[in-house]
Amino acid sequence: MSSSIYGKIFSISTWGESHGAALGVTVDGCPAGLSLSEKEVQAFLDRRKPGQSKFTTQRQEEDMVSILSGVFEGQTTGTPISMIVFNKDQRSRDYHAIAECYRPGHADYTFDEKYGFRDYRGGGRSSGRETIGRVAAGAVASKLLQELGISLRCYTRAIGPVSIPEKEIHWDEISQNHLCMPNQEYAKKAEQYLEKCISNQDSSGGIIECVVEHLPVGIGDPVFEKCSANLAKAICSIGAVKGFEIGDGFLAAKAKGSENNDVFFAESDGQIKKETNHAGGILGGISDGSPIIFRAAIKPTPSISQIQKTVNRQHENVDLAIKGRHDPVIVPRAVVVVESMAAIAIADMLLSSMTSRMDRIKAFFQTSL
Amino acid sequence: MSSSIYGKIFSISTWGESHGAALGVTVDGCPAGLSLSEKEVQAFLDRRKPGQSKFTTQRQEEDMVSILSGVFEGQTTGTPISMIVFNKDQRSRDYHAIAECYRPGHADYTFDEKYGFRDYRGGGRSSGRETIGRVAAGAVASKLLQELGISLRCYTRAIGPVSIPEKEIHWDEISQNHLCMPNQEYAKKAEQYLEKCISNQDSSGGIIECVVEHLPVGIGDPVFEKCSANLAKAICSIGAVKGFEIGDGFLAAKAKGSENNDVFFAESDGQIKKETNHAGGILGGISDGSPIIFRAAIKPTPSISQIQKTVNRQHENVDLAIKGRHDPVIVPRAVVVVESMAAIAIADMLLSSMTSRMDRIKAFFQTSL
Amino acid sequence: MSSSIYGKIFSISTWGESHGAALGVTVDGCPAGLSLSEKEVQAFLDRRKPGQSKFTTQRQEEDMVSILSGVFEGQTTGTPISMIVFNKDQRSRDYHAIAECYRPGHADYTFDEKYGFRDYRGGGRSSGRETIGRVAAGAVASKLLQELGISLRCYTRAIGPVSIPEKEIHWDEISQNHLCMPNQEYAKKAEQYLEKCISNQDSSGGIIECVVEHLPVGIGDPVFEKCSANLAKAICSIGAVKGFEIGDGFLAAKAKGSENNDVFFAESDGQIKKETNHAGGILGGISDGSPIIFRAAIKPTPSISQIQKTVNRQHENVDLAIKGRHDPVIVPRAVVVVESMAAIAIADMLLSSMTSRMDRIKAFFQTSL
Amino acid sequence: MSSSIYGKIFSISTWGESHGAALGVTVDGCPAGLSLSEKEVQAFLDRRKPGQSKFTTQRQEEDMVSILSGVFEGQTTGTPISMIVFNKDQRSRDYHAIAECYRPGHADYTFDEKYGFRDYRGGGRSSGRETIGRVAAGAVASKLLQELGISLRCYTRAIGPVSIPEKEIHWDEISQNHLCMPNQEYAKKAEQYLEKCISNQDSSGGIIECVVEHLPVGIGDPVFEKCSANLAKAICSIGAVKGFEIGDGFLAAKAKGSENNDVFFAESDGQIKKETNHAGGILGGISDGSPIIFRAAIKPTPSISQIQKTVNRQHENVDLAIKGRHDPVIVPRAVVVVESMAAIAIADMLLSSMTSRMDRIKAFFQTSL
Repeated sequence: MSSSIYGKIFSISTWGESHGAALGVTVDGCPAGLSLSEKEVQAFLDRRKPGQSKFTTQRQEEDMVSILSGVFEGQTTGTPISMIVFNKDQRSRDYHAIAECYRPGHADYTFDEKYGFRDYRGGGRSSGRETIGRVAAGAVASKLLQELGISLRCYTRAIGPVSIPEKEIHWDEISQNHLCMPNQEYAKKAEQYLEKCISNQDSSGGIIECVVEHLPVGIGDPVFEKCSANLAKAICSIGAVKGFEIGDGFLAAKAKGSENNDVFFAESDGQIKKETNHAGGILGGISDGSPIIFRAAIKPTPSISQIQKTVNRQHENVDLAIKGRHDPVIVPRAVVVVESMAAIAIADMLLSSMTSRMDRIKAFFQTSL
Repeated sequence: MSSSIYGKIFSISTWGESHGAALGVTVDGCPAGLSLSEKEVQAFLDRRKPGQSKFTTQRQEEDMVSILSGVFEGQTTGTPISMIVFNKDQRSRDYHAIAECYRPGHADYTFDEKYGFRDYRGGGRSSGRETIGRVAAGAVASKLLQELGISLRCYTRAIGPVSIPEKEIHWDEISQNHLCMPNQEYAKKAEQYLEKCISNQDSSGGIIECVVEHLPVGIGDPVFEKCSANLAKAICSIGAVKGFEIGDGFLAAKAKGSENNDVFFAESDGQIKKETNHAGGILGGISDGSPIIFRAAIKPTPSISQIQKTVNRQHENVDLAIKGRHDPVIVPRAVVVVESMAAIAIADMLLSSMTSRMDRIKAFFQTSL
Repeated sequence: MSSSIYGKIFSISTWGESHGAALGVTVDGCPAGLSLSEKEVQAFLDRRKPGQSKFTTQRQEEDMVSILSGVFEGQTTGTPISMIVFNKDQRSRDYHAIAECYRPGHADYTFDEKYGFRDYRGGGRSSGRETIGRVAAGAVASKLLQELGISLRCYTRAIGPVSIPEKEIHWDEISQNHLCMPNQEYAKKAEQYLEKCISNQDSSGGIIECVVEHLPVGIGDPVFEKCSANLAKAICSIGAVKGFEIGDGFLAAKAKGSENNDVFFAESDGQIKKETNHAGGILGGISDGSPIIFRAAIKPTPSISQIQKTVNRQHENVDLAIKGRHDPVIVPRAVVVVESMAAIAIADMLLSSMTSRMDRIKAFFQTSL
Repeated sequence: MSSSIYGKIFSISTWGESHGAALGVTVDGCPAGLSLSEKEVQAFLDRRKPGQSKFTTQRQEEDMVSILSGVFEGQTTGTPISMIVFNKDQRSRDYHAIAECYRPGHADYTFDEKYGFRDYRGGGRSSGRETIGRVAAGAVASKLLQELGISLRCYTRAIGPVSIPEKEIHWDEISQNHLCMPNQEYAKKAEQYLEKCISNQDSSGGIIECVVEHLPVGIGDPVFEKCSANLAKAICSIGAVKGFEIGDGFLAAKAKGSENNDVFFAESDGQIKKETNHAGGILGGISDGSPIIFRAAIKPTPSISQIQKTVNRQHENVDLAIKGRHDPVIVPRAVVVVESMAAIAIADMLLSSMTSRMDRIKAFFQTSL
């Protein structure tokens, strides 16, 4: 079944294997008249580029994007926007070990069973390089949201056991470290932790947090298309994500109603606000005007250079040594992936929300047409 | 936008407000030849019925289901299965307070903004009674899975701070308490905790866990239709859910690769197994043959009888006293809702998985037709 | 696979068999704030009611509709609108012949092969009564279009060989005959033709034409979601439809470019019009401001009382006599079905069209929210 | 809204403008293990190539396809198959006339209104070059059907008024002329007719017919997903199509029930057949084992070199002379487009049909997994 297509109105269709000729995405349903350049998309892709510090793989991946359609004279035309990144690093390697073995924590075994065989060169479609299409599309969605005054901020909240407390998040410090952590002190602790992981030929997981601001009230729909449900799917579709929570999340399970309820109040100008935001900006699945806040749990990189026990395609027990350059932690590079998927999901829901009320629909058709 | 429809192949379409004439669901895409009776659906609905202990609301909701179509001579016909539950308890009440005020933790405010007004009788479409359609459809999906040898077990893992340790889960004790907890000792602690909540006019959240066994390898698709992503959406679409995790979930974020990787091994008959199941039965978004394990964080019931500050429709600050009978905890009643949504999501993915391989498709058409 | 759900934004989900307990539809995605009453829906259903002349079956079908959800205080709430019609005439009959035989021109054989068995009571899900759900939903869609100033007119263009020439269509004469023909003289010819069919125990087909006026320019999307493509699917999904054409349709195949091209001209106020409308109001799949005109070919009723040769479930050759009361022509009753499907398809496309331009989206969010 | 994506299970996503950098398609949901080469796809694309006779445009379009993903070692992997054709002929031209004017019969005006502006180079997304993506995807779908023993034959039935009678169709003569007509004598008449069109600076329409053989009984679903409805949408989504009919089509509207009903009979081995095939192989929306037969009406090429009256972007009346090389008839080149869309629609429905019966599903999971 088709499974690389996401979104009802603002739809994306991604494709490409880690060691195929190219990877890419087609964004279909982007409104016409959005100014968009390859430079803006490239800026997003550069944020997922490896080799920027010792905590990311030293592989060279240039990943230069081209826009092949859907943009004319600097503006989107309303037709599909096809974007492509050619794989530079396609030289023939020795894939024997990975071709024959099922790496623990990877999708080798499940792909073989589901499809009968697999493209064994570097992970194929289950590689982290699959996210190139997501991020290129995310750049478009982010531009759309930005034009409407909506902002997304995404950052590393925790690396392994090193977690920044809620009250010590300082946005301006994010760019001061290679880990996308909004606290320089915790970033240093995290670096020390990662160095220990590296020296033990091990890897680390972490937590990514995202804050969406200035989203209008009324985004997301009741029942199955809740804002929270769509974000959950978008985020949990990212390879290494093992958990998702919105607002207080799992802490809410331990809380009492009197603690967890956010008290509404009216400002002097009549605007309705909430004293707290345990709900993470969503009530009944619909945005309530407070910031949307969610977190994603990222598992540790499964590719570690320790010898691991596993099985091969002949279903024999074997020892496996994974060679090559791998990220000791993917969290910093995954930040822009989470941000991209959130932007895509929100853009789709935002456009969907335009049809909820007859009075607004009437006004739209009287004004526009 | 339509938002009460879920599923691509096995689709459900739910409808109904808490105090409207009726609620129901249409299941479209259920294969023909599944034996199904109203009794089986009723058994599922009875599990979400209130009034079974002091920890659930004392409202009387009989919720008798009728199957109106799609079943003939005890078997599904392959056409839409329409199921209906008439609302018995529709007497005219004083909804003035709830009509005029925005209850904290509820969707009153967001519905009013999104739609311009709302059906204010008891929560309307954002009421917990909306889950009647999910559960009736869940009964059908569960029957389908059961016929294929797949089992789902769902239970209360935690109530507020009272959480059953992983190694102390005893399935057979679930039916011994009113909280669906698989440990009688922890159930008693939870009851004590809830009694304190009740005496404080307060409410509690909790955690529901679900285990899916005997699912074939190969269910779920790469990229956006991962088994984990679809479960995340299905579960996070349930009203009170604020978090979702699969396998080790948020603990994986703290773990190292060497700890989190599940070692594969081959049994003497060549079958591939995993020594551990940190992944929760899913690798690369595809089921790996181990049990699927996930958890949902449920927020505390927002309806509490303490006086709460809030605002009214005129955007004035007011005090609110919520009357009526409300659940001090909805977790035990939500267990069957989580189980239903999991069954629906898995049934949909299972049917989708039949088209992944040419060799199997060829064999299918040679055998069947 | 689910197949009784239609529409992306304005979605409908129909259900029910001809001799089951009830039939119905859920409309999901209708905007909030549309005034709607059971009376308005009933008026649509009454137009498909049989027994109004000798040219429709004399069966009694009262078909009283109830709205069970989604309407509150006379207005749609934005949540699913469930509508139900109980089957009155459910007495146990002798279905032996129809249960055992495959009626020519009916779906008995294909249902049995596809599903393994079928609900053989009166056609089950392939009965013309299946259209009750379409028409109830069509009433809602028509109301929505009417509120936006868009009108649909649907009528019988031909009965068998009796076809009204284009220049002799007189709207006001439609209500003067039982055949929904906009020309009283041709209606009389058609009646004579039908009487001959009846006396020969035979039946007739015909052509239904539909004109949609005041649709804004810009409805429908390029490539796969063309206005013409969506109308084609909506109309060809109706049981007896064997052909669909837009504008000049099959005549365009015989025409030359110089004849078929519609010349644009600007009126003195600058408004762009077309001198002719061979295109039927659609250019490149997008509405051009001229009336949308399409036609549907309806096959003759397959149930005729002549003895017919056929086969039974045991794959033996047999003679079949179909008893009971059947329409000698279904065209007049199908007019409202075609109109309903057109209204549903157009409502869905109209709502979809709101997201095509950034300038309009920006204005929408600045004004509305 | 996204509108360049087609199909539920076997999905295609096309992109590209006539004079952009490239055009292409991603096929998502193709089963793994289908052998596929660029050569096979190229063979399909070559059938839509212009410049093969004086009846098609003399523009040079090489249209060499590359497969960028989803095929590994000669076999589909089950992941998205991205195919691309770079536009060779991109030199800067004088698009002034076409940029400023609304060509009759083209989508210039409707695109401008819908999107606010348009890519005016040679038709942009509404160009016939858009079909490159459809045909490349059609090659994949056709290969899939061929592997299952299903065959599609598509040919020119009529050019303008020159129509081959049903009984004079001789398959083997198709390759003897440039018009894809299965009758050499009629092909010559058509050539004479086209030469007259050319000399009058005019163009011609025509009719394409398609026959699908060896499709199993049971393909297509009741109500909205009828085989006929899905084919209607797929075919009417092609740019120049103005009409669609299945089986006897519009002739059925004139027929009597006794003429139009196809009599079933059982062969000596018990197989059920039909004496005639007025229904075109579909009963109740489901394939009945007879050949599926449908026709598409193609309008005459709107680009003619006669001076035409029209309006410009400033809404002024002007005269327009369209320069360049245009097809006097597109029917022969559209044959492979119709065949492609039919193959894609049928492949999607065929895969969908695997979930209709519990007995077959059980057997599938017992055998396969």
